[in-house]
Amino acid sequence: MASLPVSPLAPDRFPDLPHIGGVTLATGKAGVRYSGRTDVMLAHLDPGTKVAGVFTRSKTRAAPVLDCEAKIGASSDSGAAFVVNSGNANAFTGRYGAEATQAITGAVAAALDLPESRVFSSSTGVIGEPLPHQRITDRIGDLAAQLAPDGFEQAARAIMTTDTFPKGAGTTVTVGGQPVRIAGIAKGSGMIAPDMATMLAYIFTDAIIDQRVLQSMVAALTATTFNCITVDSDTSTSDTVLVAATGASGIPATENDLGFIEGLRRVMLDLAHQVVRDGEGATKFVEISITGAVSEVDARKHAMAIANSPLVKTAIAGEDPNWGRIVMAVGKSGADAERDRMTIWFGDILVARDGWVSPDYDEARAAAYMKNQELTIHVDLGLGGGTATVWTCDLTHGYVDINADYRS
Amino acid sequence: MASLPVSPLAPDRFPDLPHIGGVTLATGKAGVRYSGRTDVMLAHLDPGTKVAGVFTRSKTRAAPVLDCEAKIGASSDSGAAFVVNSGNANAFTGRYGAEATQAITGAVAAALDLPESRVFSSSTGVIGEPLPHQRITDRIGDLAAQLAPDGFEQAARAIMTTDTFPKGAGTTVTVGGQPVRIAGIAKGSGMIAPDMATMLAYIFTDAIIDQRVLQSMVAALTATTFNCITVDSDTSTSDTVLVAATGASGIPATENDLGFIEGLRRVMLDLAHQVVRDGEGATKFVEISITGAVSEVDARKHAMAIANSPLVKTAIAGEDPNWGRIVMAVGKSGADAERDRMTIWFGDILVARDGWVSPDYDEARAAAYMKNQELTIHVDLGLGGGTATVWTCDLTHGYVDINADYRS
Repeated sequence: MASLPVSPLAPDRFPDLPHIGGVTLATGKAGVRYSGRTDVMLAHLDPGTKVAGVFTRSKTRAAPVLDCEAKIGASSDSGAAFVVNSGNANAFTGRYGAEATQAITGAVAAALDLPESRVFSSSTGVIGEPLPHQRITDRIGDLAAQLAPDGFEQAARAIMTTDTFPKGAGTTVTVGGQPVRIAGIAKGSGMIAPDMATMLAYIFTDAIIDQRVLQSMVAALTATTFNCITVDSDTSTSDTVLVAATGASGIPATENDLGFIEGLRRVMLDLAHQVVRDGEGATKFVEISITGAVSEVDARKHAMAIANSPLVKTAIAGEDPNWGRIVMAVGKSGADAERDRMTIWFGDILVARDGWVSPDYDEARAAAYMKNQELTIHVDLGLGGGTATVWTCDLTHGYVDINADYRS
Repeated sequence: MASLPVSPLAPDRFPDLPHIGGVTLATGKAGVRYSGRTDVMLAHLDPGTKVAGVFTRSKTRAAPVLDCEAKIGASSDSGAAFVVNSGNANAFTGRYGAEATQAITGAVAAALDLPESRVFSSSTGVIGEPLPHQRITDRIGDLAAQLAPDGFEQAARAIMTTDTFPKGAGTTVTVGGQPVRIAGIAKGSGMIAPDMATMLAYIFTDAIIDQRVLQSMVAALTATTFNCITVDSDTSTSDTVLVAATGASGIPATENDLGFIEGLRRVMLDLAHQVVRDGEGATKFVEISITGAVSEVDARKHAMAIANSPLVKTAIAGEDPNWGRIVMAVGKSGADAERDRMTIWFGDILVARDGWVSPDYDEARAAAYMKNQELTIHVDLGLGGGTATVWTCDLTHGYVDINADYRS
């Protein structure tokens, strides 16, 4: 397909990311599907690096996801590598898919002198077509020779599919008075309704951290970051988040280092938000905030029912403060609600309370608010202490255009 | 909003419906929201009529739905009435909503000399705006004076909102060697993902049938008819199916009269299909058939995951045999699936089996098949005996157009 115009919600530029010791990167043009652009990314991680990961729970998850799941969590002090291609997801490709994944991870292991169990691969793109893996393995030698520090922006570009901008986020936090750095990249634009993880994200830190501690942190933080975004309610077969802690800073971090945890959370949330900002056809970035639900689980159900409703999303596209559709979505969510205890705000505009439109509601003011590019919709259920916040985008002609001819 | 072009999936014409003794109808122009068209429908039902109904389970259901639920099931030999307006749903209108419903049902009861407990009302249209009920009550006297047999097409037109054609279905079945007639009308086009009922449907029969037997039949048949369609995964606050058995034929029907049950099922399914055929922006009518699931519940989850997937629906709009998205939807449904046991057909074209594309698969032939206006997608899970069939339509620019400016 023709390349798409950059999302109006894109950041001004790719951020300056901190240098992460122990990480080197390379990108190349394997021609898996796209021509004239990079489509393969290799990351090498020094010996001692701990790797944590969370993956889609789709029942039809792709071959590289199954391979990563089998490898994650094993204790090892050897180096490691991530290898990622765009253009083909190697999903629903039967036994051939597993063979293709093994060919790629084997080639990386040989080129970098690593155990194959320490090479984690991802593939993203079309589902159900055989991955021409030799185009990738043919490039591994060159990529290994080109590995260099930094280069996160190039890496983020190589893993894009329908993405319209490369996604990166980073921060430097203080652990025991010493600086520890975190940097990550992600891709994702459509088929976004993560279930345990979203799309592809690779995050690097120079902290020293135990693998099981890192795994627990990443899983917990995923619940309120990547798992709280939705573009179109469709869950990818390839969702993968991999986090590598190289230890190059010499600074140990534990489950008690709240500054580190908060820094990691900020990077994950920033990347998750960038995926929504690049939602296929998106023109609005929308935060859906729920309070007063019976439980956290109920709050999330309400939030996701609103965020995934095609009627809510098309109304937002039309800049229509159609709060009746918010009421509809809450009503269908399956979670507890009482019509006469609900309160709804668009931004700071009180729209409805006590089961009806607020007497002070001013439709013209609400319509003006809806013209903003960033919107907040807040529903208080008035029932309990359950809260949730999720992020989504609008549903526009652009989404239909992109997806009606994705394979043509 | 401007009136929409008639759906390309519409039937050639409104069907000839059988005369149902004991039923008289009238329609009028109350100007609730629309001008220049009818927007209120009154049906009078003779004494002895039994009324059954199923309603949305939305937690934010509308005032007339709550009123109907409270009235349904009460034993009565008096006459009854249905009164329906389009243009305003009287949903999320707080205490005022209940007062508006009572004003309307009270006016009908007075005009037709019925107990108010036998007047069932529905409202459909915009959510959250006060229903100008006096515009309706002012017209009740005239409507009562105009009641006449037949007139189903006019009644079906009066209850339309974004519908592009009036929906009717009927049949004559044999019970104990005697003819019994069934006729029904429905409306619905968007906000279609019924939960116990869909949108508005009114069905009439001249059989003699016990209220509790009729209620059980309607509830059971709804599960495989109205509850098996989806346009956009959004569930209305107003879904209502009311069935009236006038007994005018003098023929009793019971839960053992399979011919009657099958006739009622055919009418309900025909109306449900017409709602999908008028799905907002629809250009394709799609049957999703699941076999081989672990259970019926699982089969339904898979079928609805496919039918509600924006990526599947946009691919169908683009006439793209993108079976990878079928795999994705099965994977995210939450129901059991094993990649390597799945088989997928588009029409009679075997697309994929054993976890991968079929060796005989011919993309050109599949692409040609996708140009049909009526499509069947069949997935066999290879796991058990669970089956389900649901119906949906594609997701097009028309849907975005209609819903981005619905209130303008």
